[in-house]
Amino acid sequence: MIAPARAASPQNVLREDLPLPLCVLRGGAIERNITRFQRFTESSGVLLCPHAKTAMSPALFGRQLAAGCWGLTFATCAQLEVARRHGVPRVFYANQLVGAADIRYVCDELRRDPGFDFYCLADSVPGVRLLASRVADADPGRPVNVLVEGGLAGGRCGVRDAGTAVAVAEAVHAAGPHLALAGVEGFEGLAQYRDPGRREADVREFLGFLVRIAETLDGRGLFPAGQVLLSAGGSAFYDLVIDQLKAARLSRPHQVIVRSGCYLTQDWGAYASLQADLQQRTGSAGPVLEPALEVWAQVLSVPEPGLVILSAGRRDFGQDAGNPVALTHVRRGTTERRPLSDSGWQMTAVSDQHAHMTVPPGHGAEVGDLIALGPSHPCTTFDKWRVVHLVDDDYTIIEAISTCF
Amino acid sequence: MIAPARAASPQNVLREDLPLPLCVLRGGAIERNITRFQRFTESSGVLLCPHAKTAMSPALFGRQLAAGCWGLTFATCAQLEVARRHGVPRVFYANQLVGAADIRYVCDELRRDPGFDFYCLADSVPGVRLLASRVADADPGRPVNVLVEGGLAGGRCGVRDAGTAVAVAEAVHAAGPHLALAGVEGFEGLAQYRDPGRREADVREFLGFLVRIAETLDGRGLFPAGQVLLSAGGSAFYDLVIDQLKAARLSRPHQVIVRSGCYLTQDWGAYASLQADLQQRTGSAGPVLEPALEVWAQVLSVPEPGLVILSAGRRDFGQDAGNPVALTHVRRGTTERRPLSDSGWQMTAVSDQHAHMTVPPGHGAEVGDLIALGPSHPCTTFDKWRVVHLVDDDYTIIEAISTCF
Repeated sequence: MIAPARAASPQNVLREDLPLPLCVLRGGAIERNITRFQRFTESSGVLLCPHAKTAMSPALFGRQLAAGCWGLTFATCAQLEVARRHGVPRVFYANQLVGAADIRYVCDELRRDPGFDFYCLADSVPGVRLLASRVADADPGRPVNVLVEGGLAGGRCGVRDAGTAVAVAEAVHAAGPHLALAGVEGFEGLAQYRDPGRREADVREFLGFLVRIAETLDGRGLFPAGQVLLSAGGSAFYDLVIDQLKAARLSRPHQVIVRSGCYLTQDWGAYASLQADLQQRTGSAGPVLEPALEVWAQVLSVPEPGLVILSAGRRDFGQDAGNPVALTHVRRGTTERRPLSDSGWQMTAVSDQHAHMTVPPGHGAEVGDLIALGPSHPCTTFDKWRVVHLVDDDYTIIEAISTCF
Repeated sequence: MIAPARAASPQNVLREDLPLPLCVLRGGAIERNITRFQRFTESSGVLLCPHAKTAMSPALFGRQLAAGCWGLTFATCAQLEVARRHGVPRVFYANQLVGAADIRYVCDELRRDPGFDFYCLADSVPGVRLLASRVADADPGRPVNVLVEGGLAGGRCGVRDAGTAVAVAEAVHAAGPHLALAGVEGFEGLAQYRDPGRREADVREFLGFLVRIAETLDGRGLFPAGQVLLSAGGSAFYDLVIDQLKAARLSRPHQVIVRSGCYLTQDWGAYASLQADLQQRTGSAGPVLEPALEVWAQVLSVPEPGLVILSAGRRDFGQDAGNPVALTHVRRGTTERRPLSDSGWQMTAVSDQHAHMTVPPGHGAEVGDLIALGPSHPCTTFDKWRVVHLVDDDYTIIEAISTCF
């Protein structure tokens, strides 16, 4: 590894102790977000099972589990395997479980570790039959828990009508010794990409659909004894998820599981704006979440009066929910931070390893200066880094956190 | 790691021996691309210094060096550090060298290893002064080689006029014991994003600008004794680069260096189309390059008649140069490949871990089937994977190749 400048003393981002760009997590914000969201779900009477695909960081899994979350959520077999290698005992696999190798792996883990608690989704009769037959071949020694997935029309996976949900649940029921019906699931978050004026109504309608599926399956006696699980996403609309899923009228007890992933870091774009909507809906009753993720880069060139080229590009931050915003300017050789919000800096083009910033006259940036960028949608920034640096308020590095994508 | 199904026999992608999605490199195509492009540059009388940031794979560095390339190109200090850890002796750092930690690292390597041959870029007098002062502090024991970078107006780094180039070269000259002027460089590839009708003319004009800089610096006696290096990118326009840079009229010998990265794998989108343009310009005189990079995923759901959801998303392939195209369909449980080109399959939406395919009636896809996707722009697919699988023509895995992003 690259030798630090001052191996004996703590390394600092602003002092250029390490090469840039760097991905930085503000430690205080992370700790507060974890604590606040955990307390909020507890006081709301729901279970928190954070989507851990966001950061895929065992060090953060540990902090979330230590704060008391019910389990962790993952979306692929490769992610699940990381979780199990790091001892995560309960996994909500928020996806269809289809692949031969994936199902073999899950069954091997279920057989190997009696303490492993696992839930996955199904949305079609052929999918259930394939799963059941592959589970039968792999022989895990106990049934695999399955929730019926409800889906948004034009969206992703999930049944589009209650009739199909019944057929799927009956197929699970018929696969008796191999599968067990555990509840109903959906991901309302896709609605965030729809027209802002329709979002809330679309989410309410979709959550109503999930409740209707649960009530229908319950009415037909398709759930086994014990409690029923009702789960939705929850990063952008957790207020609606909690209200509506808790209000389901079933003949037996049910538990609501929210799976928010982005509460951990918030962001500087899409989720910041969705959070503002949420605060407005709830009258600020929800937890205050702070943006924690930053990418620090350096000014490489000021080749034209209104153009600044930075040393971070599309391989260093996500752009799927908009380009990062400029947050902070630090003059090379100092540690004084000048805020860049409302400064008129804009990322107008991006290369693999460079960001092209259009800047106003008097921008004051010189070659070698440091610039912090604030990404939108944390998931696609985390996955660009093998190590993110947890820092204190002065950007001294507290911990190098590995990711396992 | 996830235990393979048949540890003793070779693993095969189509047989689902490993969980999907997987990133696959077709071994035959890679070997042929490396050989053909190397031979082509040799017969053209230029040096090949491939941009190795594309794959960041030491196993591929080794194959390119073994085929006879002059050196390897990198863009960041983190990449350089990977190269040096894997014994790459000659590095063209196709970027401004600015950061304090970066310059310390380069100087430490220059001092530690007399066989390390290193070249970097400069495009401003303040940048040269900063570099010189940091090199002086770090004391590498020999000068750092610098090329003056010429840039496209409205583009990225690089001087915009010959006058600035002279000032930069004079500043390098003035930093005598610490820096040495090695040549002139530019990246013409940004022109590929411009209007197709203007591209060739823009590239020709830009290459003419680089030649003019070189001739001007030569006329002023700013180059030290020995040969002058002239370098440009070369993935999309190597014919023009070779023609024009070779034709520079200098008072001393000069060598042309092309730095193509994408020849290694070609692609199924942007570079395929640029390659077609190139073949048309050259009357097919250039090397035939074959697309080698594929992402294999699985059908998770067919939730609506015209919608197929796959188990790979924006975390598995790049989208900056367009969405991947559907290449191949394999019915679950078989290994027969049905081509999907011209089948009407289209990726119309993407989630972090899913691709949403709009498909025509009679698409024939069922839950559990395998689908190969062909990405555009290899760089942003490679960087999503820690391991890519080199396969033979039957998709049996020959080698698991690590990437080091």
